[in-house]
Amino acid sequence: MTKQERATRTRQALIRSAATVFEQHGYAQARLTLISSGAGVSTGALHFHFENKAAVAEAVVADASRRLRDMSGAIRRRTDTALQALVDSSHALAQRLREDPVSRAGFRLSCDGERATAPDLRLEWHHRVRELLDEAAAAGTLAEDVSREDAAAATVAATAGFEVLGRHDPAWLSPHMLTGFWQLLLPRLAAAETLAHLDPAGTGAAAARTPALAALAVGGTEAAADVVAEVAEAN
Amino acid sequence: MTKQERATRTRQALIRSAATVFEQHGYAQARLTLISSGAGVSTGALHFHFENKAAVAEAVVADASRRLRDMSGAIRRRTDTALQALVDSSHALAQRLREDPVSRAGFRLSCDGERATAPDLRLEWHHRVRELLDEAAAAGTLAEDVSREDAAAATVAATAGFEVLGRHDPAWLSPHMLTGFWQLLLPRLAAAETLAHLDPAGTGAAAARTPALAALAVGGTEAAADVVAEVAEAN
Repeated sequence: MTKQERATRTRQALIRSAATVFEQHGYAQARLTLISSGAGVSTGALHFHFENKAAVAEAVVADASRRLRDMSGAIRRRTDTALQALVDSSHALAQRLREDPVSRAGFRLSCDGERATAPDLRLEWHHRVRELLDEAAAAGTLAEDVSREDAAAATVAATAGFEVLGRHDPAWLSPHMLTGFWQLLLPRLAAAETLAHLDPAGTGAAAARTPALAALAVGGTEAAADVVAEVAEAN
Repeated sequence: MTKQERATRTRQALIRSAATVFEQHGYAQARLTLISSGAGVSTGALHFHFENKAAVAEAVVADASRRLRDMSGAIRRRTDTALQALVDSSHALAQRLREDPVSRAGFRLSCDGERATAPDLRLEWHHRVRELLDEAAAAGTLAEDVSREDAAAATVAATAGFEVLGRHDPAWLSPHMLTGFWQLLLPRLAAAETLAHLDPAGTGAAAARTPALAALAVGGTEAAADVVAEVAEAN
């Protein structure tokens, strides 16, 4: 392992440890010594990578943002329609929030309290949802009389709700919950001829539930989205 | 004004001031002197009514819970169908969260952070949504092939999302936003013959937007729901 690789690994370990500490203690109470010891390094090593706690929080949010973007891109590449990509992305987002502390902490840090850390992940998700709905409209797979603005808002509100409700009860982030939501919404959103081809349970569901993959998503420091994409391509 | 009336008024003023202080400073940073001065009373008067800060927070949540319950009951009494009552209740809830600091603070205190104050208002709202859907199913106004569990979950998730998103951008709690959500969901939820009679914009919308009423909801210490019910009956 080169020095560069080792540095990248340490940085990722610190981001992951910080996510866990922020989640357990909240940002205000999170201590840097806990973050560095959680990553198995000294506080000196932490300060080599990050100037202060705010910089660590920013790195957590930036990492969560990148994972979200990579995930959504990989899903779009492997799905036929934009609407299915929207369904699959929402399932993948819920899975991240269930299993990945960095994504969870990223959402909390970027959306909660007075000192929200940029970028706003809910806003990024909103943009992505809107892009997919615009794409569906252009391809004629969205029902003609549906307002894209309303459809995006309903999707974003429901997923924001699943996220905050899931903090106290993980059942809100279950595949079952997301599937139920799309079973209600898709018949209204999709053009008649498209609806039959859409799976409200998500087409990546089987792959995402593979134990090895789930373990990677929980334990790995790489973007799990890339792994999902690779597994999907290998299958 | 009797002594009893004055005490009730002071207690309500303290609850209202506490809601504002909790909202501006967060629970941890909220100081009792700020709460009492906001209510125009001494800290001694505060301690006559509440043992400590936790007791004030409990009173805020209990008051918000009562308002929510009263509101929903009053709406059900003046609407024809349970589904319309569901739509109207969600609009009224959003209005409360826009205009009433006690309802807003109540939701935050009961749902956020490690020290959530009982009762859980999101859970109470979930029960109410489920009751109305059960009632609609019994009356045959709910589409037969709809899962009540899924419909309740989607409604609760979306409203929880509107609540948290509305903290940063009040547009998420606008009548327009709620109407768009119900325009998407009602065609799937309602039995065909019921759908034509439902108004996704809410049947209480005109009354709720009366300036005098809005002023009462913002400035008053009484449960605005009772006022809504009285106005509805007077019209």
